[in-house]
Formats: sequence, C-alpha cells, structure tokens
Amino acid sequence: MNKEVAPQMVCIVGTGDFGSSFGKRLLRSGLAVVFGSRNPKRVSNRLPEGAQVLSVRQAVAACDIVVLAVRQQHQAALEGQLSSVINGKILVDVSNTEKTPVQGSMPNTSQLHMLYPQTSIVKAFNMISAWSLQAGLDDACKKVFVCADDVNAKRKVMELAWIMGLEAVDKGSLANAKELEEYTHQLFPQWRIPMRVTLGLLLVFYIYTIIQDVLFSYFEHGMDRSFRLAISLPNKAIPSVALTLLSLVYLPGTLAAYIQLRRGTKYSTFPPWLHNWLLVRKQLGLAMFGCAGVHVIISLAIPLRVYVYWKWVLSIKQQIDGNWTTTYTSIDFWQRDLYLIFGILGFSILVLLAITSLPSVVNSLSWREFHFVQSKLGWLSLLLCTAHTICYGRLRFLRPESYHWGIPPLYIPALMLPCITISLKLPLLLPFLNRELRMIRQGWTRSRPRAEIEMFHS
Amino acid sequence: MNKEVAPQMVCIVGTGDFGSSFGKRLLRSGLAVVFGSRNPKRVSNRLPEGAQVLSVRQAVAACDIVVLAVRQQHQAALEGQLSSVINGKILVDVSNTEKTPVQGSMPNTSQLHMLYPQTSIVKAFNMISAWSLQAGLDDACKKVFVCADDVNAKRKVMELAWIMGLEAVDKGSLANAKELEEYTHQLFPQWRIPMRVTLGLLLVFYIYTIIQDVLFSYFEHGMDRSFRLAISLPNKAIPSVALTLLSLVYLPGTLAAYIQLRRGTKYSTFPPWLHNWLLVRKQLGLAMFGCAGVHVIISLAIPLRVYVYWKWVLSIKQQIDGNWTTTYTSIDFWQRDLYLIFGILGFSILVLLAITSLPSVVNSLSWREFHFVQSKLGWLSLLLCTAHTICYGRLRFLRPESYHWGIPPLYIPALMLPCITISLKLPLLLPFLNRELRMIRQGWTRSRPRAEIEMFHS
Amino acid sequence: MNKEVAPQMVCIVGTGDFGSSFGKRLLRSGLAVVFGSRNPKRVSNRLPEGAQVLSVRQAVAACDIVVLAVRQQHQAALEGQLSSVINGKILVDVSNTEKTPVQGSMPNTSQLHMLYPQTSIVKAFNMISAWSLQAGLDDACKKVFVCADDVNAKRKVMELAWIMGLEAVDKGSLANAKELEEYTHQLFPQWRIPMRVTLGLLLVFYIYTIIQDVLFSYFEHGMDRSFRLAISLPNKAIPSVALTLLSLVYLPGTLAAYIQLRRGTKYSTFPPWLHNWLLVRKQLGLAMFGCAGVHVIISLAIPLRVYVYWKWVLSIKQQIDGNWTTTYTSIDFWQRDLYLIFGILGFSILVLLAITSLPSVVNSLSWREFHFVQSKLGWLSLLLCTAHTICYGRLRFLRPESYHWGIPPLYIPALMLPCITISLKLPLLLPFLNRELRMIRQGWTRSRPRAEIEMFHS
Repeated sequence: MNKEVAPQMVCIVGTGDFGSSFGKRLLRSGLAVVFGSRNPKRVSNRLPEGAQVLSVRQAVAACDIVVLAVRQQHQAALEGQLSSVINGKILVDVSNTEKTPVQGSMPNTSQLHMLYPQTSIVKAFNMISAWSLQAGLDDACKKVFVCADDVNAKRKVMELAWIMGLEAVDKGSLANAKELEEYTHQLFPQWRIPMRVTLGLLLVFYIYTIIQDVLFSYFEHGMDRSFRLAISLPNKAIPSVALTLLSLVYLPGTLAAYIQLRRGTKYSTFPPWLHNWLLVRKQLGLAMFGCAGVHVIISLAIPLRVYVYWKWVLSIKQQIDGNWTTTYTSIDFWQRDLYLIFGILGFSILVLLAITSLPSVVNSLSWREFHFVQSKLGWLSLLLCTAHTICYGRLRFLRPESYHWGIPPLYIPALMLPCITISLKLPLLLPFLNRELRMIRQGWTRSRPRAEIEMFHS
Repeated sequence: MNKEVAPQMVCIVGTGDFGSSFGKRLLRSGLAVVFGSRNPKRVSNRLPEGAQVLSVRQAVAACDIVVLAVRQQHQAALEGQLSSVINGKILVDVSNTEKTPVQGSMPNTSQLHMLYPQTSIVKAFNMISAWSLQAGLDDACKKVFVCADDVNAKRKVMELAWIMGLEAVDKGSLANAKELEEYTHQLFPQWRIPMRVTLGLLLVFYIYTIIQDVLFSYFEHGMDRSFRLAISLPNKAIPSVALTLLSLVYLPGTLAAYIQLRRGTKYSTFPPWLHNWLLVRKQLGLAMFGCAGVHVIISLAIPLRVYVYWKWVLSIKQQIDGNWTTTYTSIDFWQRDLYLIFGILGFSILVLLAITSLPSVVNSLSWREFHFVQSKLGWLSLLLCTAHTICYGRLRFLRPESYHWGIPPLYIPALMLPCITISLKLPLLLPFLNRELRMIRQGWTRSRPRAEIEMFHS
Repeated sequence: MNKEVAPQMVCIVGTGDFGSSFGKRLLRSGLAVVFGSRNPKRVSNRLPEGAQVLSVRQAVAACDIVVLAVRQQHQAALEGQLSSVINGKILVDVSNTEKTPVQGSMPNTSQLHMLYPQTSIVKAFNMISAWSLQAGLDDACKKVFVCADDVNAKRKVMELAWIMGLEAVDKGSLANAKELEEYTHQLFPQWRIPMRVTLGLLLVFYIYTIIQDVLFSYFEHGMDRSFRLAISLPNKAIPSVALTLLSLVYLPGTLAAYIQLRRGTKYSTFPPWLHNWLLVRKQLGLAMFGCAGVHVIISLAIPLRVYVYWKWVLSIKQQIDGNWTTTYTSIDFWQRDLYLIFGILGFSILVLLAITSLPSVVNSLSWREFHFVQSKLGWLSLLLCTAHTICYGRLRFLRPESYHWGIPPLYIPALMLPCITISLKLPLLLPFLNRELRMIRQGWTRSRPRAEIEMFHS
C-alpha cells in the first residue's frame, strides 16, 4: 500500500480520563497519538493500545497539535516543561471552569496565552464528555465549539474534530472562550426566563382558581370540594397558562412592528426588554405547547373520573325521580361542538408548529416556509384557541352567580392577553400599514433618500 | 502567535441589509471583509466593525472571492466598475428573482456570465436570510445550495459556507441556477398536489355526508340535525380521507410492480403520472397522518359532547320508562372492542411511521431498516385501518335503511380504494411473482443475456 | 471562465445498476466520470450522459480513484485487467456480503488486498442504495461509513462523499470492513434483545391476566368473559410491561453504581451482562414509551366501549330499581383523581424524554442537559408511574377476593421491579455515598495515591 504519508500525529498532555478517551478516539480515526506524561515509565494501564508515551517535552516536540488535557490548577506546574518547546505549535485547551464561574474571572485561554505567548491557542472539545468519546457518539451531542484568534490553527483543529466524527462549530475568536468555558455549567440557560414565566403563571392561575372555586365553596357554602385540587382546577389553570403563553409568543412581534412603523426603519435597536422577549419566543412557544398537551390529555380523561360518573348518575336519577328531562336545543349542541372543534383544530395546528420546531425539520424548510408555518399558522391557532375559550365561557361572565367574592371565573383573565394581542394585530393588517411595514422590513428607511436604499438584497 | 498567514479576505459589493449581515458573519468566523461601495466615504453606520470600505474597483481587486449583494436591477450599473478587474475572480451571485418568476426568463447568473465572461460565477447563499445571518443560526435553515460550472470555484465557496457555520449543498452546474433563484418564491412546492388531493377529498367526503345525513333528515323527516356539521360529520369525512390517502400511498408502488413485471425490467421509465405519484408518497402519507391524528382526538372527545350525553340520558330514561333493557351479546362486545383495538393499533403504527419520517431519524436508519418500517409496517397499518373501518360498518350496508336517497353510508366509498389496493397487492405475494419482482428490482432484465447482467451491485 | 484545473476524474469499473447511478451522481456534482467496461463498445444505454466509456485498463489508468462496482463473485475475473495498472491507486470497494454472512468468512476488502497488495483499499458507499443515489437524497440515509488503512486515501474518499452531498463517517481501519459489509443484512441489530424482552413480557403478562381473569371466571363461575381479550386485558398487560421496562431502564445504572462504589474505581469493566444491559437502555426506554402510548390511547377510548356503556346503564337501572345510590366520599374522588393525574404527569414527562431522544434534539443539548433530562426527569417519571399503579390498585391486594386461584391481580407483579429499583436507588442518595460516587465517576480511585489522580479532566 502506498502509505507514503505517515498519519498525522497529535500530542496529548495528561493521561487522565479525558486524555485517554481522546487518544482512543484519535487512534480509531487513523491518527497517531503520543501522550506526554510527567512520569512516562509509570504510566496508567488505561491508556489506549497503540499510543506512544513520552515525557511532556518529547511528546510536544514531536507534534504540531498539542491537546492540553490537564486540570486547570495543574497547568501552571507544566510551564517549565512546555515553555519554548510549545512555541509555534497549536495548543488546544479543552478545560472547563470548575464549579460556578466567578464574575470577571479570566478564561483559561487568557492564562495560557500569558504563559505561552508564542503559541496558537485554540479552545475546543470542552463540551465533549470523556464517556461519549469512548462509548461511541451515536446518542450524544457531537457539537464541538471551536474558537481561536489564529484562523489557520482553528481550521486545523476543526478538521481534527471532523476526522474524529464530531461536528465542529466555529465560534469566532478567543474572546468567546469564557462563554464556552462556562457553557457546561449552565442548564438550559435560554430557558431560565420562559420557565419562570410559565411556572409563575401556573402558580398564579392555580391559586386564583382555588380561591374562586374551593375556598369560596368552603367558606360560603361549607362544601368540601378540595378533591378538585387534583384534576379539575389544574385543568382550568393549565389551559389558561397555555393561552396566555401563546399570546406572549405573538405579542412582542406586534409591539416590534409598531416601533418599526413609528421609527420608520428597522435599523434601530429595540429596547432591551423587547429584544430579550423576542429571543425567547421559541421557548415560550414550547412551554405553551407542553401546557396545551397536558390540558388535552386531562380533558380527554374527564369521563374516566369517578366524580364525573357520580354527577351523571345523580343527574339522571333526579330527572327520573322528578319526571323531567333537561332539554337541549340545537343551539346548545352547536355551542358545545364548536367549543370542542375549535380546541381540537387549534391544538392540531400547535402540534404542526411543534413538529416544525424540531431542529432537523427546521433545517429542511426554506426560510419562507418556516416563516409561513410559525407566523401564519401560529396566528390561526391563537385565533382558534381564543375562540375555544370564548365558546367555553359563553355568556357566563354576564351572570352574577359566576362571580365568587366578586372574582370573575378564570377564563376572563385568561382571555385578557390574547384579546389584547389580537386587537393590536388587526390594525397592522390595514393595507397601507402592512405595505409600509413590509418595505421597512426589507431595508427601506423612511428618512433616507431613495437613491441609497436601492442597494439592498431583497 | 504564529499568524504567518493572513486571514482570507472576502469582498462584498453592496452595503445593504444582506451585505452587511453577510460581512458581520464573515468577520465573526475569522475572515477579513472589504466592502465595495459606490460612495465609500458616505457609508452606512450599519456596516460591521472591523470591515474595510473601499471603492468597488479597489475592493474587488483585493480579493479572490467577490460577493455581489446588489439588487438585480442595479447590477448592470456596476458593469463599468467591475469589468476587467473581476476577470479571473470568483463572483458569488446571491440574488433571487423578485416577484413571481416569468416563464422562460433568464436566470441572473446567465446575465452575469454575459457581462463578465472571464469570471467564475457561483450561485449561492440566496436562500439565507439577512436576519438569520445576524441573529444566529440556531433556529434557521442552514442549508446553502451552491451551483457553478467551475468546480474549483464552487468548492471554494462551499468551504466559505462551512467556515461561516452554514451547510453547503452541492447543486451541480449553473444550469440549476434558475431553479435555485425561484426556490424562495415557492411555498412547499412538493406539497402542492398532495394538499390539493387532501383538501379535495375532504370537501367531497364532507359534502357527501352532509347530503347523506343532514339534508336527507331535513327533507325526508323534517329534522334539523345541522349541529352535526361541527363534529359528527367531520369525524366521518376525516377518517375516510385518511384511509383513502393511506391507500393512495401504497397503490402506486403496486402499480409500478405490475409494470415492471410486464416489461421484465426496471430500466424503463414509468408513465409520467405514475412517476409523479411515486414522488409524492411521503407527502400523501404525512397528510394522511394529520387526518388520522385529528380523527383520533375527535373520537376520544366524543364522550365530552353534550349531544352524546343527552342521547345517553334519553336512552336510559326510555329503558326505565319502558321497563326494558338493551341486551348486548358477547359478540357485540367483541365487535366493538375489535373495532377500537384495530383502530388503536393501526394508528400506533402510523405514529411509528411518522416518527421514522423525521429527517434526523431517517438519517440514522439504514436503507433496509427504513424500507422495512415504511413498507412492511405501512402495509400492516393499511390492513388494520381497513379492518377498523369494516368493523365500524359491519353488515349495515346490507340494510336498506342505511341507504338515504339510494346513497350508501360514507364508509362504503371510503373502503373502495383500500380494498382495491389490497386486492392488487395480494397476487404479488405469490412466490413466483415475488421472486421475479425481486430479481427485476436488483437489476435483472428478462430479455438480456445472462452474461451481461452479472455486473451489477447487489 | 478560468477553468485552469480540470475537474477531478473518477473511474467506475462496472456498468450495472449501482455503477451507473453512482456515475450520474458524480457527474451532477461536477466531477468527470469514466466507466471501465469489459465491452466498451456494446455498452448499456443506462449509463449517464457525459461519461466516458473505456476498457477497464484504460479507465483505471486514467484516474486516481477507482470505484469497483462489480459483484463479488466477478471481481476475481477482473484481476488480469486490473493488476499492475491499479498499483498506487485508491480502490473503493462498495460491495456487500450477499445473503447472510458466514461466521469467520473473510471480508471482501481482505480478498481485494490479497489480489492487489500495492493498492490503497477503501471500503465505502456499501450502505447507499442505487435508488437513493438516483432519486435524490432528501429522504434517504446519507451516511457513508468509510474505513481504510491508508489515512490519506480514506480522507480523499470521504471528501468525495461530501462533494456528492453525502455524509462521510470515519469508521477506522479496514479491520472494521467486515462489520460494514454485514451491516446491511442486519435489521435493527441493537433492537434484537430489547424487542425480545418487550414481546416476552407482553406475552407473559397477557397470559397471566387471561388466567387470572377470563379462565378463572369461566371455570369457577361459568361466565364467558372472552371479549375482554380484545381491550380490557391488553390494557392491563401493556401498562404492566411499560412499568417493568421503565424500571429496567434505571435498574442497571443503579447496579453499576453499587459495583463502582464497592470497587472504588470506575476503571474496571462491568460484568458482560451488565455492560450489555447498560447499552440497550435507550431501546428499552423507547419500547417502554410505545407501550405507555398505546396504554394512554386505549384508556382514553374506554368510554367509547359498548361494554362500559352497558355496565353504566345496568348500574343506574339497579340503583333506580333498588332505590339506592352508590355513595362516594371525597376520599374516593381524591384517590381516583390522583391516580389519573399521576399517570398523566408521568406520561407527559415520558413524552419529553422521548422528544429529547430524537437524534437532532440530542445533538442540540449539551451533555449536562441531556443527562439532566434523561436521568432526573426519568426517575421522576418512574416515581409518578409507580404511584399511578399503586393508586390504581390501592388496598385491593389485601382483599381475599382479589386473588383468583391464589394468583394476585396483575398490578402486584407489575409493581415488583419498580419497587426494587426505587429501593436500591434510595441509599445512593445518602450524602456520603452520593459524594463518593460522584468522585469515582470523575476519575477518582480509592486505592490510588492522591498525587496521580490530579491529572484528569473535570
């Protein structure tokens, strides 16, 4: 075989858990590996077969790419062995900040840069676990975020990641290293605010309905309806939260449209609260979908409840004993059926929206298709779910007995935000506003001379 | 640091929305950017920091790759500034056709080729939106379709896309440029026919059942059953559409098998209608799954309907007043339960099929596994759903009172296509036909001498 | 245009189905293709336009990469034409083992290596079907597993795959070729054991409940309750299987923790049965989710059953005839509602777990996030589903009439494994055990001196 070119050799400094897994992976991908150890003779039997073990100086000298798989607090101790021999090499820093990151602390890459100023430092692989490197990558995150100031060094490390079967993602210059190092300490950082909003709303609506329903019955009529805490009241609070969250998804875009219309340009930044709100719409939408799904399952399980069965039997017995029949008009049937079908259709569209939020589906849609589904169909589902809630409540809000201690039934506050959102959206559909908004979003600016704007991309 | 190689520099002609977003992205990925502007001194403050701004001639002269981010109608005006200096460079055309494309019109790349015949023109990035370039690519389509006649230029632009964190997809030569330019104007082009078929069937079956049910009751018995329009009748029409669509998914493959068997080869093209039908099977299947899902939710919501409750109460009261009881035999229980379990199992398999249609799941299955799920399990679900419908209808079609104005109940026409499809499939399972079909599909041809066919890939 | 470099040329030996599809794809991607045929003059009209056809010797001599698209049994016949001219070239072997693989047989690449020892052999493309190469790759597996001993040759073939729009995956050296060749013969190999476990459990629990319910009624009371075989009994067996599978997902990790704690290190391999068990947790979890989903649909469909309706009517009539009413206390309502809500919440979390098992979602989660969802939320759902089952059974197991022929109701054996799993987990939550376990999993070893362990990656 014409193996005229020897396989590329990578140096790994550190023979711990991560280092040895990393080496095993490199060897599997056909590269040569040399470990740099402080004590090459007394070396762990965990190191993969086929790898060389040398002293740190020898190992580093033999390779162009050096992976530093040593705990942060021990990196300084290596300085004597690395300095000068590391000059001109690519030093890959795989470390994470340990424990919770301290505000203002320096990222590890900066410390390395001060120790070895003649070295191209690349931050990479810090989010890959030793376990997934060993066990195979089928069920693990394959993304390797890479950042570096030296573009060529970065490209070489990204290529290394690809060869290892990982997915390199360019994260720009070393200025982003701190963000990468802290990444592993964060659990769903982009979910923090949406989760708080969702849980807060759940709590508020749940307490609201406890007061309105259970406490009122207990104090005014002496009835113990506490068993309603398990299913009946959650099934009031959860759909109310879902509807409110759904309107919170579409409200910020509507507010942004008014700001753009007023300023006559899209090239001015939104106020921070609106900017951040726009960025969490996807998370709000998914939380909403979770609530809507639980509401659907609970609602479909209603006939399985003993309480419901008991109420039915009671009602039938009363009708037979009293020799009367509850009469329903065709309008009653219509109302109830419309209420159900609005909810079912609204939820079906939400399922569609959720499916098109899956990363692999997003990536198979064109930008225009994604926008159509998430915007047009999203608004349609907001309309349907609002109609579902209105049909549920009907004219009950007019009857005085619906008000307990003066508190209206929960569907009234639940309808507030959706109605506001829809009311704000309607004027934007007026042809002249709609046209101006579309032009602004294509880059047109009201105040600029017409000549210059022509150089934009449609 | 050994930055012996300066980062690659890319020229962007045009300082509009797309150009500046594109430049920002390039800078983030560690490349150098120079903007070519008609008026470099009076330049927008929207341009990203760190980018140079020069005259168009100077900017183009400095780089090998030139991105033309100028509206189509203004490209001609640049000719004087670009000609000669652009020779030998790679010109990236990011433009889209504006408005609806005109039949027979020339793609933009062809016009550029006439203007600059000495330039390697590459069509790319036209499907990426300025917004997603700026806002981050996590939730956007990352696919960049690239086409060019010059393979080396194409490869360089594809590499540029990868460096930017995008996903380059090779779309062949510039002959495909027009298709790419028109792509953004199309909304789910591959869904056009399946959607029409689905909506058409829904309409036909809905009207059919309105006539058979509501109009018949009204005109013959004077009963107003119009409230059935909301849920009862949709829940007849929708499952009928689902069953018909499911058979439309498996019918074309069966027809194709007969054609292949008759011709004795797979190397002859199918008639166009069959070819196109085969290509939309996935879309038909997904539309079917949507209908099946809505049918399931509506069916499970039936006990929540006031009308159903009212009918139950009425029936119980009649039984008590008349002192009789509807008697059910074990066979009645069996029939109803089989009807339910067939439907539930059929739908469960459909859910499995839908999950294995997700792009990321498809990509983790081998070809044989995908075929097993979509073909074997698909036929099984067709059988189960047909059995579900037959159990639903039972022998009702024999009773004269089921025919309103001579029109049979909807389940009869809904069963037509599935029964035809299954009947056509059965003969293909005969061992000798099955064996010949398998050989044909592996490349064997009945008429060719045996010697030559042996050179194929199993 | 500056086409100074001619497009790369690839040689395809063999003009069959796969070869011609492969050539078509290469041409579409802008490469040049030359077919090597034993009879270049009498060549099939199926070969793509634009490709050259030469004799095998001429074709091979003209290219650096040679794709051998000839059936395995005819490869030997080509030796005379290939030998010497193939020396120093890259020979891509796309073949699969035909029929079921024989234990100990040599992979095709080894045979090729013996025939052409001077050639760099690369195994690739054997899992891509001719059909998907032709029809477009949107809905097919794009993964190309590549293995080779010559790293440079491998890299060139991987690059070729990328250019063709496929996704190359490095599978190491030629030692893995046999595995690749046999891959296409396997249908979900990693599912074999989990499927058997699931189906076995289903069978056992189904038979158990047939004996406990139908046979007992028949032989002891002479009642024919066979109709319960369709829905009632499956809806007992299926959730029992789901609960057992759920505990089988979390039991092996708990056992592994005890082994690690006892050994004081994570660097010793687990016994094979535990190792294999740990590897199929994902499959067990998905099978569990399927069972849980079917259980939910069946349960929600219960009110649609005629049998249930008939029982209700009967009960109401009895109450009216006897002039008594089943009385329910608030505690009855509580129990039944808690039973439902535990099940609904447990299932909702399972849905979340299933979604985060999708390949594209996994890839967008960090390792810590994935672990949080699959471990923390998974245990929560195990607790909820166990509580759901306990609430379902309540104190029935204390009543003698629940035991038929001495056999307890099914929920008792179904609760066995979950209760064992939870009991084993609880001690691990003790702070001192938990801390030691976490240290061990970070690489700490009880017996090793402290100095050496410090060199590991956190």
